[in-house]
This record gives sequence, structure tokens and C-alpha cells, in this order.
Amino acid sequence: MSATQTAANPERPWELIQQLIAEDQRDQLELYLQELTHDGRALALSRLNDEERTRVLRMLKPAEAAWILEDLEVEQAAGMIEEMEPAEAAAIVEELAVDEQADILEEMATRDAEAILEAMPLEDAAECRRLLEYDSDSAGGLMIPDFLSFFQGLTIKEAVEKMRENVHEYSDYEVQYAYVTGPRGRLRGVLRLRDLLLSAPQRQLSEIMIPNPLSVRDTTSLDELVTFFADHHFLGVPVVDADGRLLGVLLESSVAEATEKRVKNTFLRVSGIVGGEELRSLPLYLRCIRRLSWLAPNIVLNLIAASVISMYQDTLQAAIVLAVFLPIISDMSGCSGNQAVAVSIRELALGLIRPKEVWRVFAKEGSLGLINGLALGVLLGAIAAFWQNNVYLGMVVGTALALNTMLSVLLGGLVPLVLKGFKIDPALASGPLLTTVTDMCGFFLVLSFASMTLDKL
Amino acid sequence: MSATQTAANPERPWELIQQLIAEDQRDQLELYLQELTHDGRALALSRLNDEERTRVLRMLKPAEAAWILEDLEVEQAAGMIEEMEPAEAAAIVEELAVDEQADILEEMATRDAEAILEAMPLEDAAECRRLLEYDSDSAGGLMIPDFLSFFQGLTIKEAVEKMRENVHEYSDYEVQYAYVTGPRGRLRGVLRLRDLLLSAPQRQLSEIMIPNPLSVRDTTSLDELVTFFADHHFLGVPVVDADGRLLGVLLESSVAEATEKRVKNTFLRVSGIVGGEELRSLPLYLRCIRRLSWLAPNIVLNLIAASVISMYQDTLQAAIVLAVFLPIISDMSGCSGNQAVAVSIRELALGLIRPKEVWRVFAKEGSLGLINGLALGVLLGAIAAFWQNNVYLGMVVGTALALNTMLSVLLGGLVPLVLKGFKIDPALASGPLLTTVTDMCGFFLVLSFASMTLDKL
Repeated sequence: MSATQTAANPERPWELIQQLIAEDQRDQLELYLQELTHDGRALALSRLNDEERTRVLRMLKPAEAAWILEDLEVEQAAGMIEEMEPAEAAAIVEELAVDEQADILEEMATRDAEAILEAMPLEDAAECRRLLEYDSDSAGGLMIPDFLSFFQGLTIKEAVEKMRENVHEYSDYEVQYAYVTGPRGRLRGVLRLRDLLLSAPQRQLSEIMIPNPLSVRDTTSLDELVTFFADHHFLGVPVVDADGRLLGVLLESSVAEATEKRVKNTFLRVSGIVGGEELRSLPLYLRCIRRLSWLAPNIVLNLIAASVISMYQDTLQAAIVLAVFLPIISDMSGCSGNQAVAVSIRELALGLIRPKEVWRVFAKEGSLGLINGLALGVLLGAIAAFWQNNVYLGMVVGTALALNTMLSVLLGGLVPLVLKGFKIDPALASGPLLTTVTDMCGFFLVLSFASMTLDKL
Repeated sequence: MSATQTAANPERPWELIQQLIAEDQRDQLELYLQELTHDGRALALSRLNDEERTRVLRMLKPAEAAWILEDLEVEQAAGMIEEMEPAEAAAIVEELAVDEQADILEEMATRDAEAILEAMPLEDAAECRRLLEYDSDSAGGLMIPDFLSFFQGLTIKEAVEKMRENVHEYSDYEVQYAYVTGPRGRLRGVLRLRDLLLSAPQRQLSEIMIPNPLSVRDTTSLDELVTFFADHHFLGVPVVDADGRLLGVLLESSVAEATEKRVKNTFLRVSGIVGGEELRSLPLYLRCIRRLSWLAPNIVLNLIAASVISMYQDTLQAAIVLAVFLPIISDMSGCSGNQAVAVSIRELALGLIRPKEVWRVFAKEGSLGLINGLALGVLLGAIAAFWQNNVYLGMVVGTALALNTMLSVLLGGLVPLVLKGFKIDPALASGPLLTTVTDMCGFFLVLSFASMTLDKL
């Protein structure tokens, strides 16, 4: 039995890695990393400290190290590469597919990325730089710039011959279609491999190709690409420049992955995680600062809302029991409003609502707010009346919650539309904005109703 | 100029549809729906009422109607189909791919789904029933049960001949690989179309196939499939039963789509949207009840938390200014905790943390909570001291927020792990649970510190 097999604790795979690093066992390390599943590797690497992770990359051959990087979140991979010498880093980066190279270099400081590009072979670096010029969420940024293409004058036999010569260049999963190009690399048609197989070898490619195929511009945005693949069930689409020259192939799976990433980030931003994904393996100071940058302005908003209470100190003094209900009104209104925020953000993302359709959301959330407001108001009012044995208190608290729920549901539905209309990220800003307004209004309702019936409370 | 072209308002595509329904213009309706983009169709259909949508399906030919259904969220499509007579519905459902049939029928009441299956041709219904037996998030539920396979004894020439005969049966995008099967349909190998093209026609399939290919069991879960495709860059993988018989092909894109859907639902559940996606086109009563089913228990939790305040009414009476700060402590602690909740839910989903790794999260969030707690405590304490011109008040409020932030960050990190360990959905339950505990503790800290220094406040 090898050392690997005896010592590996499947629950704590990073411990064996640390041991192998300490003993400088390169082959064992490589073997063990290969044995782990994707999840196991991601878990193990996330538990090493920065120094250990960089050490792992250094101990492996560049191709192995590159394969490890593919298992990590891009941010983490970029961090590891940034720690290394440019020449070492370039050797590893070169082993990645060019779209992955661009993803990682994009995350790094420009100076570090440039140092690595300069240490790479000229041609590879040029290709990577071309991708880096594109917005990472555009067709150009998401495409694979390698493709199989033939000049339009060839016969099937000639094309198959050419493929046979270059077969080692193409990994299986990228060659689904071949493209036919005209002068200056302009896209002319698409060939399905099936048609190459099923047609007579002496026919011209231009006879069996699908002419004038659909293509997308390199500048097409992610939103447009999602629509494109929803309209067309293709596995991939050719990407062309303004002159119709073929630049690369965009796979549907790359678009799906980019969308998934964006959706995940929505969830994090709504919860107040800013500046991209937070992983617990990131440095502590960075995690603290990012979270505080969302919390600190929030304190100011909270103070503005609470200032309403300070204006009614006399009322509160006269009926101190109200202080029990103020945080409840604040929290419940916030919850009702955030449900509406979530639905609006989703509908905006799905294209089922447009920023200017304020009236529709007003009608839909207005009716819901009315019903839920009444339901929650009656519930809280009844509980308050029984608990404190005071019908008037129940009425004050219940009415305030009912009205404030209507308001917060309406606002929750509308705020994301308005923010989107002003090009402000609704995921990040809707919650704090909503909470401040509904808190102010909720406190005002409870306390002003109370001041009107003060002798009964 | 046709009626369609003059009347269509691109901002309100549903209006022309309503007009065409009223005038019973079948051809114009079909034409107009085809002209719209995917987003335009989804938007337009979401704005019709139930009756109008069902009317659209009835006016179109079944194949056209099926194509429209593909553009809708599954829930909505199922609702529309459920409104129709089984025979009518079956004619439309038959035109869908079998995995889409299963997705839609699964959303419907069993009785309605059975009525439609009985109106379908026997063989199609049987195939659909087989898919319905699988969990929709398993390999069996996600696979496409149509595939291209050849018996292992054939030569390349014979296989190509067979393909040529049946070419109309295969739509382009599903035939990426062909499979080689042995006796009783057992999977023996995979053929790349490229290899069929590049090898001598008289060779046997068994010579050029990739033997013993990787496959997944029909019962494999979505989590395991995500790991599988992360480990292997395949576009698809064959699905087999316990005996190794080939059942279908699972595309990577189907797995990506299912994951995306799950992630989106996480965001909605965290915001208190239960029972699946809420679209504003759903009936009002359903939207109300679903939202209330999350809000109503929340009111009870809020009351439990607020009962702490009612125990300290004397303290509050003596220093009424504290009432201003109670909602601030409650909201800020909630925000800090929810950031940690979001990070834990993300790390659980990514497999970077396991439910039992409580100690790691404790250490990571503990240190962050300490720093952010101090920062926020000093900030709020200073503001409170200046605003109310009372250093003691600042100390009470600041210390309470600092301690409560530490607690809420710790709890926020840990609660999702604990809930997951008990198999409770962390997205749905973490927020309310966290808020209740941190509110109770926050109120207790402010009020008990205050009661100790009451003469100074």
C-alpha cells in the first residue's frame, strides 16, 4: 500500500497535501490530486494558505498546474498566479485554453498581467490580448478563438484530407461544426460533420454547406446572446467582426455559465456582499472592508429612519409599550417589501417587465399589498390587543402595520425598476433604500396614531 | 402593408395579439408570433390573461403551439395546458421533445397529466411515463431518451448506410456522438462522428470506437452530475441503467440549466418567496397565500424577540432615547448576519464547506465579526454620543452593537451549516432564525447595559 493510500483522510484531503508539500513528494502530490474528485480538489485547495497553494503550483509540471487552476474560482486562480514569478506563471498560463487565460489575466492587476503576457510566446500573447480587449460578458470575450475552417473552393475529399493531417490539433469537444470561409476570412457557410460523412467525396464544400449561416458580432452583449440561444437551439454559433470575418466559436454552454455566474452574484449583492464573490479563503482585511463598505452607509440610513422616533419621544414616554412594537413594524415591513424586490429583480432579469412599466407593477403589487397588509395588520393588531389587554393599542399597531405593508410592498416592487431605469444596480441598492423609507414611514404611522389616542393607551 | 405591420406596437406586443384573437385571425397570429423575439413572446404571453393564452394555443396548429410553450416558464406552460381538453392538450404535448413533455406534465396535477397521457399514442406516452418516474433533477429525469446507436458487429460502411437511411430522424443538435451497443442494449463504446469520417469504411465499429466509455447511472443526482461535468469536459454523457443498458444521452447544457434554475430559486427563497418562482401573472390569491405563509410565522418570531423589550419597560421609561436605537441595532445586526449567511449558502453550494465544519466557519467569521463589530460599534457609539450629547449613551449603544455584530456574524455563518445538517433548507429558514436570535440578544444588551448606567443616561 502506498503512502498516499494509507494516510489520506477523505474528510480532510488538504492534510495529506500539506504533508506531501513538506516532504517535497512531487510525484505523490500529482497522483493524489488526480485521484481527488473535482469537489475534493476545490475543497482541499481552498483550505491551504496562500503560500501552500503557490507551493503546490510550483511542485507540479506546468500542464498539471494549469489543470488544477481550472478547478478553482477565477478570482482564486488569479490570486495564486499573481504570487509567482512572471516566467513561472507564464509557463502555467500557456497551458490553459486561451479563453481561460483571458479570464484569469483580467482578474489581475494590469501590471502583473502584462508581465506574464510578455513572458509568453509572442503569438499566444497576441491572441490572449485580443480576447482581453473584449468585455468579458460579450461574444468576443466568451468565444473560443480556435476553430476548424476550410476555404470555399475545396472539395469534401480535400477537406477530409486536411482534417486528417491536423487531427491532433483539435480536441474532441470543440469540433462540432466546421466553417467555410471566403476571401479575407469572411464566413460563408457551416458544415455539419455528418454532411461531410454522408455526401459524395468529389462534391464542393460550397454545395453541401449551409450558406449564410447565422452568426453574432463580437460585440454582442450577454443579454442579447441569451436571447439568441433561447431563439435558436444551437450548441454554438460563429462569431464575426464588422467585416464578417470569422473570429471564433461561441458555445451555448459558455453563455449559460456566464449567466449562472451573474445570477449567483445577484443573490450575493442582495445580501450585501459587494465587490464580487466572497470566499472565506480571501484575506481577512479584504473581506472586512468589502462588507463594511455596504454596512457603513447603511448605519447612516438607519439613523435617518430612527430620527423619526426621536421626534416623538414624548408620545413614547407616555406609552412606553409602543417601543416593543416599533422593531416589529420595521422588520415585518422590510420582509414584505423584500419579497416584492425579489420578484421584480427576477422579472427584470427574465425580461418579463421593463423599467418603465411602473403602472403594471403598481397595480399588481398594490392589490397584493392591500390583502397582505390587511391580513398582517389584523394578525398583529389582535395579538397586541390581547397581549397588552388594550383594544386601542391593537388598533394603532394593526393599522400602522397594514398601511406600512401596503407601502412597502408597492415600493419593493417599484424601487428595482426605478433604480434599473437610472442604471443603478437594483440588487445592491434596493434593500437599504426600501428599509430606510419604510422604517421612517412605519415609525411615523405608529407614533402619530398613538399621539392621537394617547389617553387610551 | 399588412395589418400586422401597421398595428404592432413593439412596446406592447400583447395588444396586437388580443386584437388578432378577437378577430380570429389565425394566420396573422401565427405570423406575428414568429416575428417576435424570444423576449418579446415571453413578455407578450405573460401579459395575456389565462383565457387569452389558452385561446392563443387553440388558434395555432399543435406544432406552433408547442413551439410557443417552449418559450414559457414550465409552471406557466403547465397551467395553460391544464386548462385545455385532454385531447387538444395531448396533440400539442406530442409535438414537444419528450424531456419537455415530462417537465410540463410533472408540474400538473396527477389526474390531469394522466388524462393527457391517455390521449397520446401508446408508445409516446410510455416513453414519457418512463421519464416521469425519475426525479426531475436526476440523470434519468434530465436525459434525452433518443440517441443514435449501432450494434457492435457493424462496419463503418454499414453504419454510415444506416445513418443515411434514417437521417431525417435526427435533428442536428442531438447527434454529436453515436453509441455502440452489445447484446441486450448494453453500452459498449462511443463513436465520434469525426472518426467515422476519417477511418477506412471496411473497418469494424468496435475497432474505432472508444471502448468502455464513461457513463452515468440514471439515478445519479444533480450534485453528482455537476461534479462529473466539472471533472470531464464532455458535451454529453451516456446514461445507463443498473444492467449497463443504454437509456439516453445527458447533455452538459441540461445540467447547467438545472443548476441555474436551482441557484435562481435560492435567491428567491432567501427573500421569502416560497413554493417555487413567483411570476406576477400568477393568480393574486396564490401570490398572497405563498408570501403570507412565510410572513405569518415571521410575525410570531418578531413578537418573541420584542418581548425582551417589554421586560425592560422601566429602563426604557427612564431613558426614552434608547427607543431610537433599538431598531438600529436590530437592523444593523440583521444586515451583518445576512452577509455571513449569503457566504455560507454560497460555499455550501460550491462544495467549499461541509455542514460539519462548524469550527472553520467559527474561526473565519469570528475574526471578521470582531473587526467589523468594533468598527460599527465605534461608528454608532460616536454618532450617538455627539447626537445626544451623552458619552455614556454612546458607550452603551456602541458596545451593544459591537457585541451583537460579533454574535450575528458568527451565527449567520453557522446557521446555514446547522440547518443543512438537519436537512432543513438554509435559504428559507436562515434569515428569520438569525433575525430572531440577534434581535433578542441586541435588545437585551442595549437595555441591560442601560439599566446598569441608568443615572448617567
